[in-house]
Amino acid sequence: MHAPSTSLPPLQASHWFNSPAPPTLDGLRGKVVAIHAFQMLCPACVAQALPQASRLHDAFAGDDFAVIGLHTVFEHHAVMGAAALQAFIHEYRLRFPIGIDEADPRGPIPRTMAAWNLRGTPSLLLLDRDGALRLSHFGHIDDLLLGAMIGRLLQQAPRQAAPAAGAGCDEHGCAVPGPA
Amino acid sequence: MHAPSTSLPPLQASHWFNSPAPPTLDGLRGKVVAIHAFQMLCPACVAQALPQASRLHDAFAGDDFAVIGLHTVFEHHAVMGAAALQAFIHEYRLRFPIGIDEADPRGPIPRTMAAWNLRGTPSLLLLDRDGALRLSHFGHIDDLLLGAMIGRLLQQAPRQAAPAAGAGCDEHGCAVPGPA
Amino acid sequence: MHAPSTSLPPLQASHWFNSPAPPTLDGLRGKVVAIHAFQMLCPACVAQALPQASRLHDAFAGDDFAVIGLHTVFEHHAVMGAAALQAFIHEYRLRFPIGIDEADPRGPIPRTMAAWNLRGTPSLLLLDRDGALRLSHFGHIDDLLLGAMIGRLLQQAPRQAAPAAGAGCDEHGCAVPGPA
Amino acid sequence: MHAPSTSLPPLQASHWFNSPAPPTLDGLRGKVVAIHAFQMLCPACVAQALPQASRLHDAFAGDDFAVIGLHTVFEHHAVMGAAALQAFIHEYRLRFPIGIDEADPRGPIPRTMAAWNLRGTPSLLLLDRDGALRLSHFGHIDDLLLGAMIGRLLQQAPRQAAPAAGAGCDEHGCAVPGPA
Repeated sequence: MHAPSTSLPPLQASHWFNSPAPPTLDGLRGKVVAIHAFQMLCPACVAQALPQASRLHDAFAGDDFAVIGLHTVFEHHAVMGAAALQAFIHEYRLRFPIGIDEADPRGPIPRTMAAWNLRGTPSLLLLDRDGALRLSHFGHIDDLLLGAMIGRLLQQAPRQAAPAAGAGCDEHGCAVPGPA
Repeated sequence: MHAPSTSLPPLQASHWFNSPAPPTLDGLRGKVVAIHAFQMLCPACVAQALPQASRLHDAFAGDDFAVIGLHTVFEHHAVMGAAALQAFIHEYRLRFPIGIDEADPRGPIPRTMAAWNLRGTPSLLLLDRDGALRLSHFGHIDDLLLGAMIGRLLQQAPRQAAPAAGAGCDEHGCAVPGPA
Repeated sequence: MHAPSTSLPPLQASHWFNSPAPPTLDGLRGKVVAIHAFQMLCPACVAQALPQASRLHDAFAGDDFAVIGLHTVFEHHAVMGAAALQAFIHEYRLRFPIGIDEADPRGPIPRTMAAWNLRGTPSLLLLDRDGALRLSHFGHIDDLLLGAMIGRLLQQAPRQAAPAAGAGCDEHGCAVPGPA
Repeated sequence: MHAPSTSLPPLQASHWFNSPAPPTLDGLRGKVVAIHAFQMLCPACVAQALPQASRLHDAFAGDDFAVIGLHTVFEHHAVMGAAALQAFIHEYRLRFPIGIDEADPRGPIPRTMAAWNLRGTPSLLLLDRDGALRLSHFGHIDDLLLGAMIGRLLQQAPRQAAPAAGAGCDEHGCAVPGPA
């Protein structure tokens, strides 16, 4: 079982908030997933993207849909560390899982942001039930358009069964599991 | 070919604006359809529902989707006639087809509004590609939720082929239905 | 007692709503007055100017301040008559006095609108306690700036005593009262 | 020359941004002054109070009016230090002088916030041209009402001349006060 060509490189997070266990893209297979990349000191993130993420979480999160936040700090690193983000999450009452994109000692861009070729914050990614990337959008996106994209993805049956514990095998044989 | 049990009674309009020919529910088969019932002197219609209808029309109208307005006047009849509505449509720059729900001489509620059991204005109805009623909502509805409903309906293939010239059964005979 | 050079020609209204007696500019002397010229089918009036007029009325109307609406119809006359305006005032729950600017048989511009040289709707005029014109603004004006102008005018003492019943006389003699 | 009973205790700031020299309440005499107490991680400050402060600054700041920000941190001290505030001011493009309320080693409430009895953030204070406190408001305040208060204060002449070099009484002697 090979990953589709549009699948994302793995999410590399050094810490998670609002999540009992670190979410993985593979573990989210079967759900439509919205990933909001943001920085806590990015005004458009605070004014528009994070409220939209919270509305998505409130409206749709469940067996079929998940919202994931990713703190992709590429500037002002010293004042947007884990403790600052924790206070921010508390004060803004964000309820969905939020990971800290893993810093890269070679430069200011954190690892996942670089691997996913994000242009800045806010960025919104949508993955279908198979984990395929269906949208990677930098900047604001209208609620009506976003809702329609999500509705279409929710309506689509997965091409493949979601992976379960020990279930890399089907009637055709056994595939090597993809990276987490 | 029987109408599905959730299909709407026909739209009865005495006049149409923004439409070269009177749209009919049958003629719209194959498209997802949003019908906005409103009155030009209804504040919530003017502030929320009609701007949402225009956004829907701008974002989605085409081969797959149509927005229809229906002026369902049930009060202040004397000052919401066709000439007043025409000036309103002009000043608010509404671009989608708008019909005047046919007055019923027996009472204040116009015919389509009564046949569809609408509770007031604004009301929003969504029909799937088969013409089946999927939503009848009185009051405001959030863009994100509405977008998701429309996205789901757009993703669904019609159960039946849209009627074309000579398709289905009518007084002239029966055509072979298309694939589901 | 001569009118100051910046005083407005009289308000000529053919009908009043929300007012037991027709307000006059002379009768409003002593108060700061905001006059909102609008048309019921003007989208910017409905979306911005009339809500601002209602906020002004709710916040400030009293012994020191008055809000007056003026329906200055210069287009679509046939569908913006008195009965249509009455339904509009009822549905939008406007509480302040609203006059119908008197039609001029010679052309589409009503009499007060012409005499005051208004450029269109919405227009907002501010009069100080002496009845002098202090602002005549076409289009939208920001709440903060408008509030500050009103605050300044409220703080100014009148240069002349407000006219009272039979009080056209002062230490300099007796003046003929101006037209209502 | 005694301070009026409504005058504020002095502003105690450990650092200033956007100001070549530390502003003082005495140095601001003669101007109407708006002081916005905020915390950078307070959602209502970010969404409402600071944009309002910026609008005030853009609309009115000059010889007659000044806007002052005061970062009154009473929680999450570790992540709202000077470097974090500097990044915040940069990203939100705040242009008015902003001071850091001086920390009090005895507790979480900083010195000015305690001396002024502020209830929380956002708080807005208005001082008249004499430095007398005219408003101390916790929470949001409407633009129209705030504008009107500021307009009234701007219209009022100072009771006392603003202190200039050699004016008023100080350790060097007494100057004749200006007209009220």
